[in-house]
Amino acid sequence: MKNVYKHSLINEGPSLQTWREKLNEVIFGSETRAGRNFDITLILLILSSVLVVMLDSVEEFHNRYSDELNLLEWSFTLLFSVEYLLRLLCVRHPWLYMRSFYGIVDLLSILPNYIGLICPGTQYTMVVRVLRLLRIFRVLKLSVYLNEATVLMTALVNSRWKIMVFLYAVSMLIVIYGALMYVIEGKDAGFTSIPRSMYWAIVTLTTVGYGDIAPKTGFGQFVASMIMITGYGIIAVPTGIYGVELIKTVKKSNLRNDPCPDCGAIGHDLDADFCKYCGHPLHASDELDA
Amino acid sequence: MKNVYKHSLINEGPSLQTWREKLNEVIFGSETRAGRNFDITLILLILSSVLVVMLDSVEEFHNRYSDELNLLEWSFTLLFSVEYLLRLLCVRHPWLYMRSFYGIVDLLSILPNYIGLICPGTQYTMVVRVLRLLRIFRVLKLSVYLNEATVLMTALVNSRWKIMVFLYAVSMLIVIYGALMYVIEGKDAGFTSIPRSMYWAIVTLTTVGYGDIAPKTGFGQFVASMIMITGYGIIAVPTGIYGVELIKTVKKSNLRNDPCPDCGAIGHDLDADFCKYCGHPLHASDELDA
Amino acid sequence: MKNVYKHSLINEGPSLQTWREKLNEVIFGSETRAGRNFDITLILLILSSVLVVMLDSVEEFHNRYSDELNLLEWSFTLLFSVEYLLRLLCVRHPWLYMRSFYGIVDLLSILPNYIGLICPGTQYTMVVRVLRLLRIFRVLKLSVYLNEATVLMTALVNSRWKIMVFLYAVSMLIVIYGALMYVIEGKDAGFTSIPRSMYWAIVTLTTVGYGDIAPKTGFGQFVASMIMITGYGIIAVPTGIYGVELIKTVKKSNLRNDPCPDCGAIGHDLDADFCKYCGHPLHASDELDA
Amino acid sequence: MKNVYKHSLINEGPSLQTWREKLNEVIFGSETRAGRNFDITLILLILSSVLVVMLDSVEEFHNRYSDELNLLEWSFTLLFSVEYLLRLLCVRHPWLYMRSFYGIVDLLSILPNYIGLICPGTQYTMVVRVLRLLRIFRVLKLSVYLNEATVLMTALVNSRWKIMVFLYAVSMLIVIYGALMYVIEGKDAGFTSIPRSMYWAIVTLTTVGYGDIAPKTGFGQFVASMIMITGYGIIAVPTGIYGVELIKTVKKSNLRNDPCPDCGAIGHDLDADFCKYCGHPLHASDELDA
Repeated sequence: MKNVYKHSLINEGPSLQTWREKLNEVIFGSETRAGRNFDITLILLILSSVLVVMLDSVEEFHNRYSDELNLLEWSFTLLFSVEYLLRLLCVRHPWLYMRSFYGIVDLLSILPNYIGLICPGTQYTMVVRVLRLLRIFRVLKLSVYLNEATVLMTALVNSRWKIMVFLYAVSMLIVIYGALMYVIEGKDAGFTSIPRSMYWAIVTLTTVGYGDIAPKTGFGQFVASMIMITGYGIIAVPTGIYGVELIKTVKKSNLRNDPCPDCGAIGHDLDADFCKYCGHPLHASDELDA
Repeated sequence: MKNVYKHSLINEGPSLQTWREKLNEVIFGSETRAGRNFDITLILLILSSVLVVMLDSVEEFHNRYSDELNLLEWSFTLLFSVEYLLRLLCVRHPWLYMRSFYGIVDLLSILPNYIGLICPGTQYTMVVRVLRLLRIFRVLKLSVYLNEATVLMTALVNSRWKIMVFLYAVSMLIVIYGALMYVIEGKDAGFTSIPRSMYWAIVTLTTVGYGDIAPKTGFGQFVASMIMITGYGIIAVPTGIYGVELIKTVKKSNLRNDPCPDCGAIGHDLDADFCKYCGHPLHASDELDA
Repeated sequence: MKNVYKHSLINEGPSLQTWREKLNEVIFGSETRAGRNFDITLILLILSSVLVVMLDSVEEFHNRYSDELNLLEWSFTLLFSVEYLLRLLCVRHPWLYMRSFYGIVDLLSILPNYIGLICPGTQYTMVVRVLRLLRIFRVLKLSVYLNEATVLMTALVNSRWKIMVFLYAVSMLIVIYGALMYVIEGKDAGFTSIPRSMYWAIVTLTTVGYGDIAPKTGFGQFVASMIMITGYGIIAVPTGIYGVELIKTVKKSNLRNDPCPDCGAIGHDLDADFCKYCGHPLHASDELDA
Repeated sequence: MKNVYKHSLINEGPSLQTWREKLNEVIFGSETRAGRNFDITLILLILSSVLVVMLDSVEEFHNRYSDELNLLEWSFTLLFSVEYLLRLLCVRHPWLYMRSFYGIVDLLSILPNYIGLICPGTQYTMVVRVLRLLRIFRVLKLSVYLNEATVLMTALVNSRWKIMVFLYAVSMLIVIYGALMYVIEGKDAGFTSIPRSMYWAIVTLTTVGYGDIAPKTGFGQFVASMIMITGYGIIAVPTGIYGVELIKTVKKSNLRNDPCPDCGAIGHDLDADFCKYCGHPLHASDELDA
C-alpha cells in the first residue's frame, strides 16, 4: 500500500505536459471538483459492474437477460480498459504503475473478459471480476475514512505477532482435537479422515457449528464439549490483544509529543495551550491536527 | 431524537390555555404524579397490545379466540387514537409534532387498523403494529435509564466511522468469499448463485452457522475454514473499537464539571491544577476522587 | 447472599452451649481442621449425589442399576436430612436460617424424595435435586475464590443498568425482526407464528444458529443477514460495558486511598512506601492487603 | 515448562567432552548457525511427518499410496529415534531429560511405531503421533515469538483463578439448564438423558448450535432462548477478565527496567522521579517514552 509513489507523480509535476498533468489530477487526485466527480463515477461503475456479475450468477436472470447482462459487462470492460489506458498515459512511470498493487488490480478487472474471448467457458473468471471491488480502496484512501482506517490497521499490524502466536496455538489444538475425534467417532459419524475431523474442529472451535458433522457417542460429545468451551473461552485472547493495541494506538494519536518547556511534563491533550501541571504556556505553533 | 422541541412546549407555556398546559404536563411530562401514572399506563397498554398481536399470530389462538383478540385490538387502537388526538390538541405546534419521529410512530401505531377497514386482508400491518414498541422509548427517555443509555449511545455514535470502515471491509470479504465458494462448490452443494453464496458467507463469518448450506468438497471446506477463522478473529475489531470508545466516554464523564474561573473552559482532568487553555489556577478545593 | 447472619452466630457464641458452639464451628465454619474436613466431605457428597441423579436419567443405567441408584439416592437424602437437622440444632435462630437462601436450598435438596414417597411418579423432582449444586457456593464463599468472585460480581452488579438498557434494546430488535420475518417467510419456512419467529431471531442474533428454522426466500435471507451482522456487531456492547466496569473495579481495589501527606498526590500503588512524585514517605501503617 | 534445566546443561558445559558439548549446542541451542539449521530441519520434519499421518487417514490416499506412506512414516520414526538417542547422549543428566516434559513428548513421537510392530492394528496410535506437533514449541521457545507468547501466557496464568470461578459458574448453569430441559422436552426431542441435555446446553451456551438436538415445544424454546441470551451475554466475562489482565501485563512490561540506585527496587513507573520504596531520586536522564 505504497502511498509514496502516487504523490511523487503529482508533486514533481512540472516535467509532465499540461494536459497529462491535468488528466493525472483528475484520475489520481481528489482535490479538484473534476477529480472528485471522477472518483464518484468510478465507484458507481465498479459497484454496478459487480452487481451485474452477481445477477449473472442467478440462473433465472442469466437465462432471461443473458444478452443484456453480457452487453453491460462488455460496456464496463471497455470503460475500464479506456480508464486503464488513460492511467498508463498520464503517470510518469507507466511501468512502475503496472507493477504496483493497484495497477495489477486494474489489469485484473479487465483481463478476464479478453481472455474469455480466446478460451471461452471459463466460469472461474467470475471471482476475478469481483476483485474489482478492491479498486474502491484506492478512492477511499483519499477520503475522510483514511484516518479511521489507519488507526484500525496500525493496531492490527502492531498486534500481528501476538495474533500469530495465538493462531499457531489454535492450529495445534485443531490438529490434536481433530485426530482425537477421528479416532473416537470414526467414519460412521462423518469423521472420515483427520483433515475432515479438523474441518469439524474448526467449525466447532469458532462456534460456527453447522451440524453437518456432529459427534454421536457419549465420549465424543464429551470431547466436543471440551472444544466448545475452549473455543468460547479463547475468543477472549484475540479480543484482548486487539483491544489493548487499539487503546495504545488511539492514545498515541491523541497526545502531543512535545514536553512542557518549563517543567518537562508530557502527555498533554492536543488542544491544550498551557501545561496542566505547572501552568506554563505550551508552544502552540507546532500543534498538529489529529 | 430532538429533545429540544418538547421542552420548548413546556417552558414557553404561558400562551397555552391552562387546561392544555396541564394536559401537556400529564401527557408529555413525567415530573408530576399524574404524568408518571400516565407513562406507566401507556407502557402497559403498549406491551399488552403487542402481546395481543403476538398471540393473534399463533394459529390455535387465532382460531379459538378470534373475536376476543379482535375486540382487544380495536380497544387498544381506539385508546391510542384518543391519545393521539389529545397530543395534537395540547402541543403548541401540532404540525411540528406530526412530522417528528415520535409523531409518526404514534400515527403508525393506529393507522394500520383503519386502513384494514378499507382494504382488508393485509397481513403486513402486523409488523407496523409491532412498531408501537418504539413508543416506549419516549417514556424511557425521561427516566433513570437515560444517563446509562446516553453513555452507551455516545460511544456508539463516536465509533460510527470506525465501525463503518470495518463493515465495508467485512462486506468486501463477504463478496469475494461468496464468489469464490460459488465457483468452488457450485450448485450441487446449494451454492446456486453469488447472492446465495454471500448469504452463506455471512452465516459463516458471523459464526451463526445454520448448516442449511454447507461445503461438500475438500477444497470448499478448506476455504470455509479460512472464513470461519477470519470471522472468529475479526470479532475482536468491533469489540475493540467499541470498548476503547466506551472507556473514553466514561472517562470524559469523569472530568471535573467546574469551568475555569478565568476563561470559562471546561473538560479539565480531575488532577489538573491549572486551566490547560489559559493557565489560570483552578480551584483545587472541590477536587473529587474519581 | 447475606454473609452477616452466619458470622453473628459465631461471634455472639457465648450463649450457645459448648457442644452446639463446637458443632456450629464445624458445620458453618472453615477455620478449624474439622470444619475444613466437613466442607470437603460435603462437597464430595453433593457432587456424588448429583452424579447419581445424572446417571439415573440415562435409560440403560436406570434399567440396569435401578436398585443401586435408588439406594444411593436415599443414602444421600438421609445424610443431607441429618445435616439439615444438625444445622437447625446448632444455629442460634433456626427460623432465620430456615428462611435464608441457603436454608431453603438445603431443604429443597431433601424435600423432593420425601414428597416422592407420598405422591410418586413425579419426574420433575429431578431438577430440584440438581439444585443441590448451589449448596457448594456456601462452602466456596469461605474459600480463596471469594476475592476473585467478588471482583467479577462487583463489576457485574455495577454494570447492571447498562446491561439492562442493552437487553431492552436487544428485545426490541428481536420482536421487530421476529414480526418482520413472520410476514416475509410465512408458515412454509417454519415461521408459523410471531413467538416462533422471535425464537428464531434469538437463535440468529446470538449467533447460535441451530438451523431447525431457516429463511428460504431471497428477501428473507437478506433480512436474516442483517440480523446476523447486527448480532455479530452488538456483542461488542456487553463486552465493552463489562470490560470497562472490570477495569474500574480492579483499579479501585489496587490503589491506596490515602494521599501523600506532603504533596497530596493520590493513586499510589499498594506496596509504595514513598510518594512517587515528591519522595515524601507515605503512612505505611494503614496499608491494606489487596 | 522448566527452562532452567536446559540452560544449566549449556552453562555448566566444561565437564562435557568437546564433541558432546558441540552436539548439545547444535541440538539444544539456537545461537549457532548449525543450531538454527538443525531447528529448521526439525520443524520441517515434524510438519512433514504430521502431514503423512493426516494423508494416511484419508481412505483413498491410504488405499493408493499405502506403501509409500508407510515408508515415509518409518523414515521419520528412524530419524526421530536417532535424534532421541543423540539427545540422550549429549545431555548431562539423561535421566532428568527423559522425565522432563519434552523428553516424554520426544519418546511418545517414536514409541507408537515400535509398539505397532509388536501388537499391530492399533489405530489409536495416530493421535499419539500427532502429539509430535508439541515438539515445535521447544524450538519456538528459543525464537523471537518467545516474548509475545510470554506476555499472552502471563496474562492467562494471572487470570486463571478468575477464569476458574467463571467456569464453575458456567458449569452450574449447564447442569441446571440441562436437567431443566431434560424434564421439559423429554426423549422425543432428543433430550434422552441429563448428560445429553447438558451436552445440548453446552452446544447452546457457547453459541455453537449444531441443531442435532433442538427444543420442539414452545416452553422449551423459551428456556432455550434464555440460555442463548445468557451465553451471548456472559462471553463478556472471560473477554473482560483476560483483557484487563493483558492491559496490566503489557503495562508492567512498560515499567522502567533500571533499579533504584539506592535500594535496588525495580518496577517503577516510567514517569516516576523518586523510588517509591525508599524515596531516593531515580535517574531522570534515561527516561524512555512509552
